[in-house]
Formats: sequence, structure tokens, C-alpha cells
Amino acid sequence: MRTVDCIQKKRDGLALAPEEIRHLVRGFVNGSIPDYQMAAWAMAVFFRGMTPEETACLTMEMADSGDRIDLSAIRGIKVDKHSTGGVGDTTTLVLGPLVAAAGVPVAKMSGRGLGHTGGTIDKLESIPGFRTELAPDEFASQVNRIGIALTGQTGNITPADKKLYALRDVTATVNSLPLIASSIMSKKIAAGADAIVLDVKTGRGAFMKSLEESVLLAERMVDIGRRVGRTTVAVISDMNQPLGYAVGNALEVSEAIGVLAGEGPADLRELCLELGSHMVVLGGRAASAEEARRLLERLLDDGSALLKFHEFLAAQGARVPGEADRLLGRMNGSANGGVPAPLGKEAALRLAGLWRRQLPAATFTREIAALRDGFVTDIDAEAVGSAAMLLGAGRETKEAAIDHAAGVVLRRKVGDRVEAGEPLAELHWSGGLAEGRTEQASRLLLEAYRIGDGKEAPPPLIRAVVTEDGVRMRNAVL
Amino acid sequence: MRTVDCIQKKRDGLALAPEEIRHLVRGFVNGSIPDYQMAAWAMAVFFRGMTPEETACLTMEMADSGDRIDLSAIRGIKVDKHSTGGVGDTTTLVLGPLVAAAGVPVAKMSGRGLGHTGGTIDKLESIPGFRTELAPDEFASQVNRIGIALTGQTGNITPADKKLYALRDVTATVNSLPLIASSIMSKKIAAGADAIVLDVKTGRGAFMKSLEESVLLAERMVDIGRRVGRTTVAVISDMNQPLGYAVGNALEVSEAIGVLAGEGPADLRELCLELGSHMVVLGGRAASAEEARRLLERLLDDGSALLKFHEFLAAQGARVPGEADRLLGRMNGSANGGVPAPLGKEAALRLAGLWRRQLPAATFTREIAALRDGFVTDIDAEAVGSAAMLLGAGRETKEAAIDHAAGVVLRRKVGDRVEAGEPLAELHWSGGLAEGRTEQASRLLLEAYRIGDGKEAPPPLIRAVVTEDGVRMRNAVL
Repeated sequence: MRTVDCIQKKRDGLALAPEEIRHLVRGFVNGSIPDYQMAAWAMAVFFRGMTPEETACLTMEMADSGDRIDLSAIRGIKVDKHSTGGVGDTTTLVLGPLVAAAGVPVAKMSGRGLGHTGGTIDKLESIPGFRTELAPDEFASQVNRIGIALTGQTGNITPADKKLYALRDVTATVNSLPLIASSIMSKKIAAGADAIVLDVKTGRGAFMKSLEESVLLAERMVDIGRRVGRTTVAVISDMNQPLGYAVGNALEVSEAIGVLAGEGPADLRELCLELGSHMVVLGGRAASAEEARRLLERLLDDGSALLKFHEFLAAQGARVPGEADRLLGRMNGSANGGVPAPLGKEAALRLAGLWRRQLPAATFTREIAALRDGFVTDIDAEAVGSAAMLLGAGRETKEAAIDHAAGVVLRRKVGDRVEAGEPLAELHWSGGLAEGRTEQASRLLLEAYRIGDGKEAPPPLIRAVVTEDGVRMRNAVL
Repeated sequence: MRTVDCIQKKRDGLALAPEEIRHLVRGFVNGSIPDYQMAAWAMAVFFRGMTPEETACLTMEMADSGDRIDLSAIRGIKVDKHSTGGVGDTTTLVLGPLVAAAGVPVAKMSGRGLGHTGGTIDKLESIPGFRTELAPDEFASQVNRIGIALTGQTGNITPADKKLYALRDVTATVNSLPLIASSIMSKKIAAGADAIVLDVKTGRGAFMKSLEESVLLAERMVDIGRRVGRTTVAVISDMNQPLGYAVGNALEVSEAIGVLAGEGPADLRELCLELGSHMVVLGGRAASAEEARRLLERLLDDGSALLKFHEFLAAQGARVPGEADRLLGRMNGSANGGVPAPLGKEAALRLAGLWRRQLPAATFTREIAALRDGFVTDIDAEAVGSAAMLLGAGRETKEAAIDHAAGVVLRRKVGDRVEAGEPLAELHWSGGLAEGRTEQASRLLLEAYRIGDGKEAPPPLIRAVVTEDGVRMRNAVL
């Protein structure tokens, strides 16, 4: 088989056969196919697209290009969740304990962040003592024991995807739906998922700027899942303004703790309930999304989700506050016939406060004030993310260190009233920043806010849900 | 300037600025831009094309990427001719002496052949003693003295084009009009041409299979020429059946000698008159193509063109037949008042015979006979070229040696009547061929001929002429 013939076939709009895709992926990984041929193929794919069959085949070839994580030692249906990346996206921190409390095993591999979107591992590492490197058997046995474990990416997962992504990044071929879809799905499949829930972000702070594109991407991924036997549901959610109020590692952990205790920002809670209900259904713990949602609401409101979070942190080595042990000891003492009673709202809020006190706090904070009266009509999520990165919350290069305490807390969101001089947002940072960084971040943040005269409704949060049955649009913009 | 931004701009259908094209070409040649980025750009060009400005800019950047041949020591307007490559294309051998005889300086750099199309250097090397390596000053002084010199390619001409062509060849990006046009034009400009006549072949034996594509390519090249101050005329000629009768090095030299002596195949003579008349006009030796044509016909018919060929061969070291010296000595002896009289037809035919006897002859010949009665309706030029290559006339790899005597001589062309058992073509070869080669060549040649019941007119030879004034179609198919 000649590689140039495969490229030409795609260039001319024909579909490659499975053995041709296999030839390309394997040759690329083992070095027998040079980068320049793969780059020409990727550009041809940019223009010609790929059939659903080709896309599924590419996905499985990339999933099989390195190590596959074996989760067979873990009981139950492993449902993985993936987000296409947003600003202040704290859903993984909430969803893990929440669906684990509902009985869905959570065996999560997660990565570090780069650029203006944070990584779950970075966020959890802001909790003193938390260990992100678990041995494979430790990982599996923890999931079987308490229902949840999280570890950093280990082994040689999807090397074909890593190599292809690096090439696409420098050849202007990132923005291709089948290549994006197969990249995401190959990683989830290699990480051992039985079923997948996707959070496809749409809007200015997201990779996909338009709803139409986001739906097309979601459909692609759901179709791949169907073809390779991993039922997939995609939720399309707004990323025009940041999710919740906090952007930054410890700040987001604190916010997640609030949601797990039954409080927290309404938008973050709502997205977690939406994503979580699909995970619970796919995990076989509820018959319908509505039933799952009622279950999850109860688990948030009665403290069960926060208690699972506590167990999770304790199991992974986080320094447990002494008062927390005493609080939970008292609760267990009042257990009714061996069945532990729910924590209850009041105790949950006390436990939340104890964990929050463990988190690092920034040395400095500064408020950004509105220059005029009016209503917030828009917040540029990407600019907010960039401001947080400038303050030390994110990495500009892979090797950079981050400041877990740094970040941004929004004080107003879209639709809120503000008077001139009132705070719009807070900057959090510590020492050691390069000259002018805080000024630059302040300016970015101030410019991220648009204030108008009329009150505007915040953008609808959940835009669509895509399943194997099709696309259901939600909260269409009026 | 970021290379990935240049690729993206082209990918999105925008035109690159001159400095962006310069960045790509220079970076590619000096190695700062890797092959994979250039491959992605070339594929984007395949899909998006290039504007006329971009194409001209790319041409000049490639022409400037290496050595430029300085022909300023040669008097007159240097008109170069280029053919896009055909089977049995002997026009350069005829045109050089012919237009030199008309007073247009011919300072030609030529290459060796690869695959089924032969190179002019290979053809001339079949003449015993002929030297193809001339020093630059020897080259220029020979043109000034006798009006014609030919040398092999020297120096580092258009390295950007060489490197890009090699990359396009393995990334399925050869077939792009602006890339083909700029490749051809950059080489002619670097070789020092003041004006250019192009022979764009069209049909099954040519790179461009359709007339429409051929016209588009011709228009591109004429436009480049106009933009960079090298007036260019393109003739589009048929390459469905081979040109002339001979395919193979010495065989084609023999055929060219016939045309130069005022005889030879009508199609080869006609194409040489067409291309030559444009060269003579561009070289300032005639006011119109019609006037130029009358001049060239006279030079062919009165022996002047063959005499120029004789001078050319003698100057470049070919072993001159003793009888030729005596013949020409007698002619000079009869010169009228110091002005040499034309050779005349009869003496020209005798001189042609003397040079032909210098050429190597094949050890073996074999005739291929028709299997049925009828008229030849079609001859697959590419198959004929491949048969000649199998017999040793062409190179399959760059390093391979060739047999100058080997090749094919057609005995029937399209429109000719043939009886079963009568010869269609002859194979010429020498010893040392690999087992089964002659059988393979015979089979190819037999299959190249199509014989039908009705007489078909041969395909029109000259299909169109493209100048800065536009396209004039010729001999449209009925």
C-alpha cells in the first residue's frame, strides 16, 4: 500500500478503507510514514471530511496505538465524562463524588491544564496532602471500596493521537470535526470507559464558537460511540460567560465544595445535575434522566455527595481536618441500625467550611470596580481565563509551575445590576509575579465586562442534548 | 511571521502577501520551515488555488532561490522553449538549429530524461563525440559565434522548486495548476530566458489529459510571464498519439535530421514551424507569425537549417564525417562573391545521410504485425513510450544507463490503412536486456494500437495558441 495513494484518495473525496486508515496510523506512530505525508492527509481531511465509518475506524486505531487501561477489576458500568474545555469549569470536581454517591463507579484519569483552561489534577492538588499518583491496583480497589478514585495519566495512552495533535497544531488542521471527534473519543476509549457523557462547550470561551458546529461535533462523537459499542450522550452547554464565579484552582475547589453541600452557583449546580443524570442512567442506576435528576438533587441536598467527596479526599491522602473526624464520628454514633443516616444540610455546610479552611489563600486580592451604572450584558469567558492565567493560576508552557491560590472571582454575572464603583470581580494572587502582570490582568478583566442600560437575560445554559436518538434543543434563544 | 498562520490563511481561501510567500520559500529552502508545514500548505493550495499575483510571486521566489544564469554576454533576445513532456518529442533538436538559422540566439540548458519521456541531452549524446558539458564562457562565445549552444544543467538552479517538487510527488499535490505553472516558469527564468515559448502537450500521453486543463495551465504561465516581464506564448499540441514516428534517442535524432533537411514526418515539421514562428517573432526576427513561418519553411527547404545543425554538432565536438567536409568544401568553393549560397535540397539530403550513418544502430529489430485489416483509429502514446523504455531507451531510475540505439519506430499512425500481417511498428534493441523485456514491449505496443473498420482523421495537432491577448483555438474537433 502506497501512502501517497491514500492521501490522493482522500484528496479526491473518497473514503479510505479500514486497512488504509490502519496503514496511516500505524506507519505514523512507528515512523515509517513521515510527518509531511500525514500533514498532507490531515489537510485533505480538513477539506474533504471523513465518513462516519472512517471516523470510527480512526478512533479505534488511535485508541489501540498505545496502552489500553483495563478497568475490568472494577465492578459496575464505568461511565466517563469529558468536557471540551471551558473557563472555570468545575464540573468534574462535583460530578465525581455526586455520581459515586449514586452508585456509579468513578474511575477517572485526568490531566493537567494548559493555557486558560485548568486541569482537574491541578485543582485537586491545591488540597494539602492529596495524592494524584495511584498504583493501578490501588486505583481499582479504591473504586471498589468507596466508589471513586482519580489518578493522573499514566502509561503510553493514545500516542497516535498525541503525535497527530502536535502535527495538526502546527499545520492549521486542528479545526476538523472528524479529527477533533476521533481525538476525544480515542482517549476516553483507551482510558477504559464503557459509556461516555460529553460536555460540549459552545460560545466565545469555547473551542466551538457556534451552536451549529457544536451540535455537529456532538453528533459525530455520539455516532462514533454507537459504532464502537460505547453509548455516548453529549450535552451542549454555554461557554459565553464563565461557569460559576471562581476561576483558579483552590477557588474552584471551594466553589465545588459549595455545590456538593447543596449550595453553590445555580449554573454550576444545574450543569452538574444535567451531566450527572445522564451518567446515572448510563451507569444503570436510574431508568430515566428525570428519575436520575431527582436522585442527584437529594444527594446534593442531604449531604451525601459532600460526604462522598470527604471519603474520596481522605482515601487519596488529603489532610483531614480534626474537627471533621469529630463531626462525622458524632453522625455515625447516631446511625440508625447500622445504616448511616444522611449527613443533613446543616452538618454538610459545617463540613464544607472545614475543608475550605484547608485550602491555600492568596496573599493579595484586589477588586475591579464598574466604571458606570447598568446591567452586565456580557462577560468574555476567554478573557477571564487569560486574566487568571496572568495571575499565576494557569500554565503558559507545559513545564511552568502554577500558584494554586491565584485566580479570579466574579462578583457579577450576566443580567446582574451594578452601580459605578461597585465591584465586578476580584483578583487573587501571591508574590513573585512578573512586573505589570496584575495591571494587565485587571485591564483584561475590566474589558471582559460589557455593561449596558437594559437588563439582559443570562444566556441559556443547556443548549442541546445529543443522544443516539437525535438532537433535542433546549432553551432556544428568543 | 508564523508559518502556521500562512497555512491557515491559504486554507481559508485568502491570498498570501508577497512577504508571506517569501517567508515560506526561503524558510523551506534554508530548513527553518519543516516539510510537514510545506506539505500542508501545498495541499491547501491544491484545494484553494493561488491568485495570479501569488503565482507570479512564488515563481520569482523559486527562480531566486539558487543560481541565476547570466546570458548578458550573449547578443540578442534569448528565447527559450519548453515542452511539458511528451513521447517521441523531437522538437528541441529541430527548433534549435532552425531558429538559430533565422538569427535568434539559442542558448539552451537541457536535462536528461526520466520515465517514458526522453531528455534532449540523452538524444544528443547518441551522436559520437558530442560534448554536453560546456564551460560558461565557452557556451556564450559559441552562441555569439554560430548562434547556438546547448549544455547540461549546471549550478544550483531553483533548489526551492526541486525540493518542493520532491515533496509534492509524495504528498499527492503535484496536480495543482499554480504549482505546475510556477515550477516550469521559475526554471526558465533562472536559466536566463528573455522570452518563452511553451509547448503544452494535451491528451492521453501528456500530463494534462484534457484540453480545458491544458488551456488553463497555458493561461497561467502566459500570465506569469507578463507579470515578470518575460513575454510568453503557449502552443497547445496534441499528445494522444506520439509525435513523428521515432521514439528513442538515436532514432529521434535521425528523424530530426530528416525534418532539418526539409523532409521528415509532417506532424513534427508542422509543430516545429508553429513553435519556431513564435520564437522568431519574440526574438525580433520577423514582424508576424506568418512572416516568420515563411522564413522558417525556406530555411528548412534550402538546407540552411541542416547546415546550422552541422555547425552546431561540429562546434560541440561531434565526429564530423569526412565526406561532409568535402561536400561543404565544394559548396563553399562555389560561393558567390563571399556570400555562402544555400546548401540546396539535394546536398542537404546527402549531408543528412552522412550524419545518420554516424548514429549507433540497434543489434536487433522486430516488427509487430496487425492482427486484422482496418484503419488505425488510436495509438496510446504513453504505452509506446513505456515500450521504448522497456527496450532500454529510457531510465526507470535516475542512475540507470540507457541504450542510445534502442526504441520504437511506428510504421502506421492514426488514419493509416493496414492489412492483417502488415507491420504496425518496429522494436529496436541491443543485447543485455532482462528476460522477457522484448515480449513485454511487443505486447504493450500491440495493445497500444486500436484498429477499426472506418477511417478516422488523425487528431488535430495544434489545438490552441495562448498569448497575452487571449486564447485562439485551432482545428476544433468536429
